Amino acid sequence: MSPKITTELLKQLRQVMKNPRYVQEPVQAYIVPSGDAHQSEYIAPCDCRRAFISGFDGSAGTAIVTEQHAAMWTDGRYFLQAAHQMDSNWTLMKMGLKDTPTQEDWLVSVLPEGSKVGVDPFIIPADQWKRMSKALRSAGHDLVPVKENLIDTIWTDCPQRPCKPLITLDLSYTGVSWRDKIVALRSKMAERKVMWFVVTALDEVAWLFNLRGSDVEYNPVFFAYAVIGMNTIRLFIDGDRMMDPAVREHLQLDSTLEPEFKIQVMPYGSILLELQAVGAGLSPKEKVWLSDKASYALTEAIPKAHRYLTPYTPICIAKAVKNTAETEGMRRAHIKDAVALCELFNWLEKEVPKGTVTEIVAADKAEEFRSQQKDFVELSFATISSTGPNGAIIHYKPVPETNRTLSVNEIYLLDSGAQYKDGTTDVTRTMHFGTPSAYEKECFTYVLKGHIAVSAAIFPNGTKGHLLDSFARSALWDCGLDYLHGTGHGVGSFLNVHEGPCGISYKTFADEPLEAGMIVSDEPGYYEDGSFGIRIENVVLVIPAETKYNFKNRGSLTFEPLTLVPIQTKMIDVNLLTEKECNWVNEYHQKCREVVGAELERQGRQAALRWLLRETEPVARVQ
Amino acid sequence: MSPKITTELLKQLRQVMKNPRYVQEPVQAYIVPSGDAHQSEYIAPCDCRRAFISGFDGSAGTAIVTEQHAAMWTDGRYFLQAAHQMDSNWTLMKMGLKDTPTQEDWLVSVLPEGSKVGVDPFIIPADQWKRMSKALRSAGHDLVPVKENLIDTIWTDCPQRPCKPLITLDLSYTGVSWRDKIVALRSKMAERKVMWFVVTALDEVAWLFNLRGSDVEYNPVFFAYAVIGMNTIRLFIDGDRMMDPAVREHLQLDSTLEPEFKIQVMPYGSILLELQAVGAGLSPKEKVWLSDKASYALTEAIPKAHRYLTPYTPICIAKAVKNTAETEGMRRAHIKDAVALCELFNWLEKEVPKGTVTEIVAADKAEEFRSQQKDFVELSFATISSTGPNGAIIHYKPVPETNRTLSVNEIYLLDSGAQYKDGTTDVTRTMHFGTPSAYEKECFTYVLKGHIAVSAAIFPNGTKGHLLDSFARSALWDCGLDYLHGTGHGVGSFLNVHEGPCGISYKTFADEPLEAGMIVSDEPGYYEDGSFGIRIENVVLVIPAETKYNFKNRGSLTFEPLTLVPIQTKMIDVNLLTEKECNWVNEYHQKCREVVGAELERQGRQAALRWLLRETEPVARVQ
Repeated sequence: MSPKITTELLKQLRQVMKNPRYVQEPVQAYIVPSGDAHQSEYIAPCDCRRAFISGFDGSAGTAIVTEQHAAMWTDGRYFLQAAHQMDSNWTLMKMGLKDTPTQEDWLVSVLPEGSKVGVDPFIIPADQWKRMSKALRSAGHDLVPVKENLIDTIWTDCPQRPCKPLITLDLSYTGVSWRDKIVALRSKMAERKVMWFVVTALDEVAWLFNLRGSDVEYNPVFFAYAVIGMNTIRLFIDGDRMMDPAVREHLQLDSTLEPEFKIQVMPYGSILLELQAVGAGLSPKEKVWLSDKASYALTEAIPKAHRYLTPYTPICIAKAVKNTAETEGMRRAHIKDAVALCELFNWLEKEVPKGTVTEIVAADKAEEFRSQQKDFVELSFATISSTGPNGAIIHYKPVPETNRTLSVNEIYLLDSGAQYKDGTTDVTRTMHFGTPSAYEKECFTYVLKGHIAVSAAIFPNGTKGHLLDSFARSALWDCGLDYLHGTGHGVGSFLNVHEGPCGISYKTFADEPLEAGMIVSDEPGYYEDGSFGIRIENVVLVIPAETKYNFKNRGSLTFEPLTLVPIQTKMIDVNLLTEKECNWVNEYHQKCREVVGAELERQGRQAALRWLLRETEPVARVQ
Repeated sequence: MSPKITTELLKQLRQVMKNPRYVQEPVQAYIVPSGDAHQSEYIAPCDCRRAFISGFDGSAGTAIVTEQHAAMWTDGRYFLQAAHQMDSNWTLMKMGLKDTPTQEDWLVSVLPEGSKVGVDPFIIPADQWKRMSKALRSAGHDLVPVKENLIDTIWTDCPQRPCKPLITLDLSYTGVSWRDKIVALRSKMAERKVMWFVVTALDEVAWLFNLRGSDVEYNPVFFAYAVIGMNTIRLFIDGDRMMDPAVREHLQLDSTLEPEFKIQVMPYGSILLELQAVGAGLSPKEKVWLSDKASYALTEAIPKAHRYLTPYTPICIAKAVKNTAETEGMRRAHIKDAVALCELFNWLEKEVPKGTVTEIVAADKAEEFRSQQKDFVELSFATISSTGPNGAIIHYKPVPETNRTLSVNEIYLLDSGAQYKDGTTDVTRTMHFGTPSAYEKECFTYVLKGHIAVSAAIFPNGTKGHLLDSFARSALWDCGLDYLHGTGHGVGSFLNVHEGPCGISYKTFADEPLEAGMIVSDEPGYYEDGSFGIRIENVVLVIPAETKYNFKNRGSLTFEPLTLVPIQTKMIDVNLLTEKECNWVNEYHQKCREVVGAELERQGRQAALRWLLRETEPVARVQ
């Protein structure tokens, strides 16, 4: 990896920062955040502005360019990568280290008095704007919105914004029609006494209209906004996608409908003007509901007194609770996914000893097996295929420069998943194709104990996921080991592999309570820098539990694993398991046999079936 | 309990709300919060203004009186009590219920347009002021500070503010001189580049100067503020307490000192004027450090741009980490406290069957045994002495109307503690003086398993206490049981029995990481409404742990119980314990025998010693 030479680009950026064509007054600093206008986690190439200006293309980072300086804030996952990808024009600001200044403090320390700091108001979330604006103002500076994105003005070969065809999902996949979703949304709006709801997150637009797209890699979403009134529906979307007869039929664009279900289609770029018009026409007590993470530009379109901001939108919360059609779809998707992985691991077991399988080859092979399954659409994220020391890099993605060959001497960690039309998968297995060391087995077993502790946890209705995080760590902690990431995230249904509002992490507190129908991942790990990485991840469904006393009818919850891929028993030090844990493993494997075995049989995949049967032999503790 | 008749009082209050002698303009509503000017949890009788105006004397509640209405907000602990204590002039606002409006929403719904809402600026914390002021302003009303407390104007027989003599603590108790504490504080101030620090919490003033008082029941504090500059120390305190030669000597008031250690003593009531003078004399970049919970009045004295607000002050954090002198003192205090409780339980065992011991008698007896111990000062909180159904009332305090007689048929729960000159105790034991039912034993054992899970937990340095809360619940959750309070709170060293900034609760997230030397309680419970309450509470010290891999030198922590009182083995269903838990119980009891046994022996308390030895017999599981 050689760094991107950015001298010329920075010179150009500094020129436009003073060019009256783009800025009302010169700005002494310009902020380039990572996101897009929808606060997406995964972004389209045309939105990779921070990577363009700096060379650093990790998933998280904020660049700030002043007349004299160029600085990049990123977190521990990316210190090495950012240092490699950026040239000497850039200063790396290592977030989380004690001596690293915040963006605000740094700006205050380098800017001349009374400076203007510019940012694209469509990219910066309103809450971040507020924080930064306040800090700058108190030091005598101003945060100013720069309408035209300054990176775009110098990015001559910037790719076009994608505008790919849409997929319509019928009731068998979604369980609820978009009309009924609108009805439910309006009833939530009425409950909170708001008259308008602005849908800004891409997965929320997709979910609401039962549509999917492929504008962003891995996430089946499309660029659009929606504004839902009590009697109107406006969908802001570009291109001739609305010409597709299937889409027109699905959205009933040509039918005679009650006016309140008539969708008005408008250009993507007209959202701001339309929202400003909504804002201008509000009667005194009328409120508009927005996510508090919506962009500053859209939030500002609504006068302050009329804003109703919440961290999680009613769509985000409704989307998280899967209905029967969705959970059944997720089950099917996970069975197909397990078939693909049984094939893969059976193949790896034979091929790895030959020394010809690299991380990239293994990742490609995993995709090949997945793509053979019905309704496969694409991967759900970049496959983490890592062996030996690469496994300790938590967000590793193999590239030719780092590509290692799998061997019988090293642990192999595969974290991968796919989008099927009926569901989204995300599974991690850690395998050894030779003989693991006692230490490797010990660590693996603690991780497994943590995985089971969460998966088998019983907890009262209304418990927030973050309260379960320590269960995943307890066995590791007892021996002085830990892992520095959360334990689980929400998973969409043929949607984003990471979604809110629930999760299992020591880092959040504002997560919504878990309820039956929610789907999260359970993925504790252990990482030994320079040696190996271990992670065991299942996607699990929140289901009612049966308990002796049932919390005085408050109700109990637990998890059901949707992922049904064998956990390598060779890696388990069975005597470190309790009897309960041992039974969990055997029952889990029994279910893999029954459910996935039947599908392998049906698909005539005999070799993979034999592998499955062997890998799911019961384990027993030596008494 | 008959309600307080408040018709006349409310009439008087409504008059002064319009009286130009007290308010610049009439106020249409007046807020009466629970607190004092120091945001104390326990308050002096003269500060019980909310109880005076409403009759409701629970520890938490806010009264709001308008021309037409009088409403009281309180939480689930106090719904019943408030309903009993208040007459029909009052509307009870049950916090936490879905349909209960917030104070702001309620005010907006009842006030005429453009109303003024008054509050004592010394009583309302700045952060609450900000929130309420914003909400009222956005609805066209104004929150206004009313300098003279309006309750005080109508409270003709209001008790005087206490002004009791001070106790000086020498190095053998505090480990660090007040001079060295000032030096450390100034170094924290220099780190954050602040020039002034305002000490507003009573326990922080007491800790800083190594003084104690008795102005507030249970909390050995005294009414005072302090303002620490880089070169000045101002102590705001009333009465002739500063005439006491011991205090003068302790504070070196008559010695020739370097000017930066010379304490200027000023009247308690002059804090605002002095702080305003400090605020007026600040140079452009000079900052003043305040708790963000300090009163609105004091916070406003400092111009906004000069405020440096944090949720926890450097004193709060330093105070939480006990030094060797303090932990040794705490150990001694807990041994003495255990002696008193062994005496008590031995006595109860003999007396209860006679049917003459009531909850109040038992509480008094506990105090009597404690008061026989060296350096006993007072109780550290109102003793919770509860039997049978009263045990299910979490914050129960026996009064003649509720006083039950202990019997051999009901569970008895005693949550009590004391202030000794060398430390503060807080211990809960749940006992049965007859034969507990299988169900009672089952519940007790789950609570015990939770207690042990926290007490024996090993976790990495830097872990926040709230991450341990679920450990205390896991065994209960497995059977569908739970308890609706946190698991632990910080404990002061001959100071407040509840102190920040650390604790073990699902409810907080802003707690500071646990570190060696901190002291918290570990007190899971289970409550069966109308039947019984179970709680097992030890005060525990955070200590370094030894682990196999030691978190790559990040270091490990665990807890050491300071409380050494037998846990009634009769209540344990030993077969529900794991072997590890069983060993924990036996080792804990072994330590009680050794440490407390020796002290009982030394004090010649043979009967109690025999009781201790019998109660600490090892338990064993039936294999």
